[in-house]
Amino acid sequence: MSQSTYVIGHQQPDTDTICSAVAYARLKEKQGADAVPARAGELNPETQFVLERWDVDAPSHLEDASGEQLILVDHNEHSQTVTGAREAEIMEIIDHHRIGDVETSSPILFRNEPVGSTATILSELFDDAGETPSTRTAGLLLSGLLSDTVVLRSPTTTDRDRVVAEELAEIAGVDYEEYGKELLTHKSKIGEKTPREMILSDFKEFEFGTHELGIGQIETVEPAVVLHQKDAVLEAMDDVATEREYSAFVLLVTDLLEEDTTALVAGDEIETVEAGLDTAFSEQEAFLPGVMSRKKQVVPPLEDAFR
Amino acid sequence: MSQSTYVIGHQQPDTDTICSAVAYARLKEKQGADAVPARAGELNPETQFVLERWDVDAPSHLEDASGEQLILVDHNEHSQTVTGAREAEIMEIIDHHRIGDVETSSPILFRNEPVGSTATILSELFDDAGETPSTRTAGLLLSGLLSDTVVLRSPTTTDRDRVVAEELAEIAGVDYEEYGKELLTHKSKIGEKTPREMILSDFKEFEFGTHELGIGQIETVEPAVVLHQKDAVLEAMDDVATEREYSAFVLLVTDLLEEDTTALVAGDEIETVEAGLDTAFSEQEAFLPGVMSRKKQVVPPLEDAFR
Ligand SMILES: [Mn+2]
Ligand SMILES: [Mn+2]
Repeated sequence: MSQSTYVIGHQQPDTDTICSAVAYARLKEKQGADAVPARAGELNPETQFVLERWDVDAPSHLEDASGEQLILVDHNEHSQTVTGAREAEIMEIIDHHRIGDVETSSPILFRNEPVGSTATILSELFDDAGETPSTRTAGLLLSGLLSDTVVLRSPTTTDRDRVVAEELAEIAGVDYEEYGKELLTHKSKIGEKTPREMILSDFKEFEFGTHELGIGQIETVEPAVVLHQKDAVLEAMDDVATEREYSAFVLLVTDLLEEDTTALVAGDEIETVEAGLDTAFSEQEAFLPGVMSRKKQVVPPLEDAFR
Repeated sequence: MSQSTYVIGHQQPDTDTICSAVAYARLKEKQGADAVPARAGELNPETQFVLERWDVDAPSHLEDASGEQLILVDHNEHSQTVTGAREAEIMEIIDHHRIGDVETSSPILFRNEPVGSTATILSELFDDAGETPSTRTAGLLLSGLLSDTVVLRSPTTTDRDRVVAEELAEIAGVDYEEYGKELLTHKSKIGEKTPREMILSDFKEFEFGTHELGIGQIETVEPAVVLHQKDAVLEAMDDVATEREYSAFVLLVTDLLEEDTTALVAGDEIETVEAGLDTAFSEQEAFLPGVMSRKKQVVPPLEDAFR
């Protein structure tokens, strides 16, 4: 019997990562492959809402990928892969981020496109294969797309995302503006979390040269809920930065309505963060007008500053 | 005035690298980009024949890419990039090799597909864009495809390569079997070269963990021309391995008619090469039945053995 291939997204999974894993596993199955969706961590409340809304089972949690065959979606760097991925065989990668450090010994399919979501690329792959996603799969893909692009408002949004969103909304039978607003209310359910849960719920780790950084993001319609407990949040950030030996921990509190970000910072390398983001922190806080995208507006200048 | 983007292939350029650079620059230009083809080294006799046959100017030699904008074709690892590529901005990558060590700070298009040539992917990109290549461009793409797949005989050949070859041959107005045979005679014009020129004419460098390896390939219909001067060839390999501090220099002398390879080896790590290739060298020579592809049959097991 041949081995199953796990389709899996990044740690601290978000809606795009989970929905892309499920949708791509379905496409691969239609094409005769033995592909199973999996996840590398706990589901966030937005993703739980999405899976219930479209009546889809949560992918099972892959604790250790050593010795497995993997298709990576929505990430392509080892600091974000499932545990054991370095001892796994990477069969394919579908992503929309910067090019990271995953290497392979054989030629594989690696399709990275500068669009708003991995779900956008997957919708196009369904198209290329002459397949139409089911209502459920279209609902999942639309959710990944709208979540990553903040309902087509993030600066990462491209014309391709807009076209795909309309097509998916039609198949799924929803109005994407209306459905998107419903999604956003779930994204911003942060009030019930502890500060530590809050800062780690959408969190990514990066290696820039010799420096390790943590960059979290809270996308919310109520940034005050986070900023009113700033001291406790900074303490949690300090703890994490010390435990994991980060040079800096940057938290982006992104206001989805105003389309701005307030950044908080902890760690030893605050001046390098200031240089990278071209800003000055006052009491570990800085306002970044127009900043909404970690990937496009924060990671590249920080990488340049730290290298 | 905005900066031109150079479309450029690997060092020791082969026909697929040069033809892909020219063809992709044309497609980007059609789409309104300011893209210029370039090369990272001297043309081999086969590629010279191809450019004359289709009446196309040779791309100019880019000596130093520092500060430039680059689109990489037919390679994606720094040991094979043009000088200065680490100080350049990588805008896109189109390739068909293993995933290497090129990283970027922003999301870019990276399209790597496990097919026989980069030219195959480019032909599909013309298609996706609704563009038909001109007779000349089709001639170049066909040449890249037939050269890399040894006229569709190499084990790297896929059904997609076969379909694309027929389409390109029709546009270019040639019979691809006949044209392919003509190409091969130029590929095998090795008799006039010095041993050093011979071993470096289709040559790639790899970093496997702490080891650097050189792996050259001579694809010929007359392997005896190389093997009859084995002592001089081994001496040249020894010199290069010492100068560049390689752990091993492996030369693949591939018989295009018999579809077999005779490997020669120099350097300190011959036993690791033997383990990787699952063979025993006698007087620094081993016969590898059925081996035709460096990329698919030689690089992956050597990487595993050296890591
Ligand atoms: Mn995503
Ligand atoms: Mn090639």
